[in-house]
Amino acid sequence: MRKIFLKIAYDGTNYAGWQVQKNALSVQQVLDEELTKLFKTPIKTTGASRTDAGVHALGNVACFETDSRMPADKIAFALNSGLPRDIVVQESREVPAEFHPRFDAKEKAYAYKILNTTHPLPLKRFDTMHFHYPLDEEKMKSAASLIIGDHDFTSFSSIHAQTNSFVRTVYETDVYRTDEDEVVFLIAGNGFLYNMVRIIAGTLIEIGTGKREVSEMAAILNARDRGKAGPTAPACGLTLLQIWY
Amino acid sequence: MRKIFLKIAYDGTNYAGWQVQKNALSVQQVLDEELTKLFKTPIKTTGASRTDAGVHALGNVACFETDSRMPADKIAFALNSGLPRDIVVQESREVPAEFHPRFDAKEKAYAYKILNTTHPLPLKRFDTMHFHYPLDEEKMKSAASLIIGDHDFTSFSSIHAQTNSFVRTVYETDVYRTDEDEVVFLIAGNGFLYNMVRIIAGTLIEIGTGKREVSEMAAILNARDRGKAGPTAPACGLTLLQIWY
Repeated sequence: MRKIFLKIAYDGTNYAGWQVQKNALSVQQVLDEELTKLFKTPIKTTGASRTDAGVHALGNVACFETDSRMPADKIAFALNSGLPRDIVVQESREVPAEFHPRFDAKEKAYAYKILNTTHPLPLKRFDTMHFHYPLDEEKMKSAASLIIGDHDFTSFSSIHAQTNSFVRTVYETDVYRTDEDEVVFLIAGNGFLYNMVRIIAGTLIEIGTGKREVSEMAAILNARDRGKAGPTAPACGLTLLQIWY
Repeated sequence: MRKIFLKIAYDGTNYAGWQVQKNALSVQQVLDEELTKLFKTPIKTTGASRTDAGVHALGNVACFETDSRMPADKIAFALNSGLPRDIVVQESREVPAEFHPRFDAKEKAYAYKILNTTHPLPLKRFDTMHFHYPLDEEKMKSAASLIIGDHDFTSFSSIHAQTNSFVRTVYETDVYRTDEDEVVFLIAGNGFLYNMVRIIAGTLIEIGTGKREVSEMAAILNARDRGKAGPTAPACGLTLLQIWY
């Protein structure tokens, strides 16, 4: 059997997240069905990151095994001709049999995009959160930098998180404003807790409006209490950018 | 009667263009119906630019008259609360009674966006044309600059154009590649013939692939023959950016 690596981009708007589930359409289900059709045998992928309902990806990763001799780089083209336009495989290649998309991931990067304008923009309605009160992106950038490093991120984790440890390492953060008034929050780390990026984004928005001080970010982190952080920002603003191995 | 100016952004994907027509839904129809609902009296807007089916806008303009005393700047907010998410009024203000959105327009700017990647990207499927052969954006930029000035643009006009004169003035053009491999063609002028920007874009793409030489652009212009230019690029890549008065 060969193991095939897929890098997948999707608009998560119309999906109940990455992972296959009952009673709701997931990105993985659509992909698995297309693979099954292509190779004429049931195929189930193993995914790297279980993005939530409504969250987008430029570079989620999934693997599957096949006996097919189809050249690995052609698989992306063959899949894309059948997939809906909101799911597009960006890359397909063969990897060693022992490769695991979730356990072997060394680093992941996310973007949270906030359209900070008086009125929303139609063409940005799918992949940004609209927020019309002024945001101070420099304060948000300073606050975001305070979570870089190894920390217990309990304060920035959903109370529904199932995990043995709340310690994660954030390698890098940035916040900047684009020419089109999108305030973009970038974060890269070795892994993320359930809702972690969205809770950090919701907290940064409260700092950006002046409702909270920049320095509160450290106190929130140290409290290890979800109640101290801001709200969970909506799914539509979040995009999984890339996974490194 | 007060005259109200509206600046309107829309995702044209699901509309048969700006202008009201039979048997198909237009942006103007949706806007007029929302205005009629808001002011409880039939309202018809006069538009600045009749964008085609599938073409987008960041700043199309329309005007209407009303007896209402609603503060002009509040009208945008009131309309947006009822409009679908693919049509958003960006600005509303009072203008002199003699203002005409079409006849008073001095300059318009359009962008044509080409996603130049191996595979398409889901979140760019609505407002870019996907083109996977390599494009040389520097050649396209040079060719685009050759149409700056006063010219007879018959070669770059649909044979279905209804106009007294094919002479238009192009003030400025640019072509550049973004970090995300979008090749963006910008053009500003005093007015544009039917399909003109899309035919220029289609011709620039042939220059970008090397199928035609940069210098051919001048010969095509001089021929005053639609048959000499390239194909009409698809509507989805085109956005009306702004209109100046």
